[in-house]
Amino acid sequence: MVLEGHPRYKSLRLRNKLVDGYEKGITSAHGLIAHGRGEAFDYLLGEQTSKNALDATNVACAYLLTARHPILSVNGNTAALASEEIAEFCAITSIPVEVNLFHRSVKRINRIADYLHAHGVVNVLAGFDFVKLDHISSDRAKVDKHGIFKADVVFAPLEDGDRAQALTRLGKVVLTVDLNPLSRTAVTSTVTIVDEVTRAMKNLISFAKRFEGKDDQDGLDTLKASFDNVQNLKTSYVIIQQRLQSLTL
Amino acid sequence: MVLEGHPRYKSLRLRNKLVDGYEKGITSAHGLIAHGRGEAFDYLLGEQTSKNALDATNVACAYLLTARHPILSVNGNTAALASEEIAEFCAITSIPVEVNLFHRSVKRINRIADYLHAHGVVNVLAGFDFVKLDHISSDRAKVDKHGIFKADVVFAPLEDGDRAQALTRLGKVVLTVDLNPLSRTAVTSTVTIVDEVTRAMKNLISFAKRFEGKDDQDGLDTLKASFDNVQNLKTSYVIIQQRLQSLTL
Repeated sequence: MVLEGHPRYKSLRLRNKLVDGYEKGITSAHGLIAHGRGEAFDYLLGEQTSKNALDATNVACAYLLTARHPILSVNGNTAALASEEIAEFCAITSIPVEVNLFHRSVKRINRIADYLHAHGVVNVLAGFDFVKLDHISSDRAKVDKHGIFKADVVFAPLEDGDRAQALTRLGKVVLTVDLNPLSRTAVTSTVTIVDEVTRAMKNLISFAKRFEGKDDQDGLDTLKASFDNVQNLKTSYVIIQQRLQSLTL
Repeated sequence: MVLEGHPRYKSLRLRNKLVDGYEKGITSAHGLIAHGRGEAFDYLLGEQTSKNALDATNVACAYLLTARHPILSVNGNTAALASEEIAEFCAITSIPVEVNLFHRSVKRINRIADYLHAHGVVNVLAGFDFVKLDHISSDRAKVDKHGIFKADVVFAPLEDGDRAQALTRLGKVVLTVDLNPLSRTAVTSTVTIVDEVTRAMKNLISFAKRFEGKDDQDGLDTLKASFDNVQNLKTSYVIIQQRLQSLTL
């Protein structure tokens, strides 16, 4: 049990959520290690959303709200950490979810789909009606015909570099969440939110709520056009450097 | 399978070793996450031993070679990653090993002890003849009467902060390996090797071999006296900052 007064309460609570997810067969062992890498970068980012990350989040949301066929690609870590937030976001935006895994097995896909359903996510594609994408080896190429395959905008938090690259090569807009601003996923995606996934999802929900029921295509398009992902990543990078300089032994 | 040509071959091979360790019941889920944090810091350190880390390694070895009752405290991650190196180091130095776990269970202790034996570690204390240390809550306080309890020098790689602190409070010299130079373990220990554990173990082996069969107490004492752990940590920190500055998007 983690006490609420602990200085790193939120981080420890997320860690426990992920370990629970592992015990439920949702997260993979490699997913746990990947989470640790994220923790280290989040620590360097001060475990809070920067203004810079919020900018990227708003732009990502603008892409999702103006997409013809948006899809939210969910893996084990994202499901274990952020199912409640995904349910809320998808309820507001009517965006469907596709379960898409690096360490793919039908059993794990079903477990994750069940877990998402149990947390209130209504529209979950499990990728069984799939096509194979080019430029990705093995099972990771399998995407749902009605999901990622036909999507123009793919929101894939905690993605791996190969797939982000393959999806952008197919001309899709790729939005991601990655705490490492230097990762291949971060650099390859159209919009990279350098933030912890539950914080990012909460900010996406806020943004989506502000635009709920409004038709502001022009405003959203302007927001999209104003964004420079490389510049945004560089700023995240500077934030880490500054934070390192401010931490003392 | 990881190909030897992969740019991050060594890092991926260690990761797979750890996942194997998890599947064998040696590593815990929290241990996998901790490894991920280490990976991120090692990436920032350039995945190589710095001159600075080598200095700390040599001093740590000097402490071990001049101790009356040295002990190597091994947890799940250390066993999964570095059993071969531990076997070689302990064969040269005759230092016994104690299995001491954050997430303690008799089953896991036995598994780790068996794993160490299978990799050639001869003298393994499993901590069943234990006493409880002060200042540590729960089972983590249990240490072997003939191991950590009576030791003057404890080498505890990949340690947690609470225990490092409790051991130094008891007047023991604590040597550790930690890739995060800002961690509580790093700051609390007498000598902190900011390096990946298998690289550190290999360097310890080299140093111990150079001194095998020699009696150079004075030389080793001088080495120990010359060392400033806080200064060494600060230098590691500067290495990370410089590396961050050199990495470009």
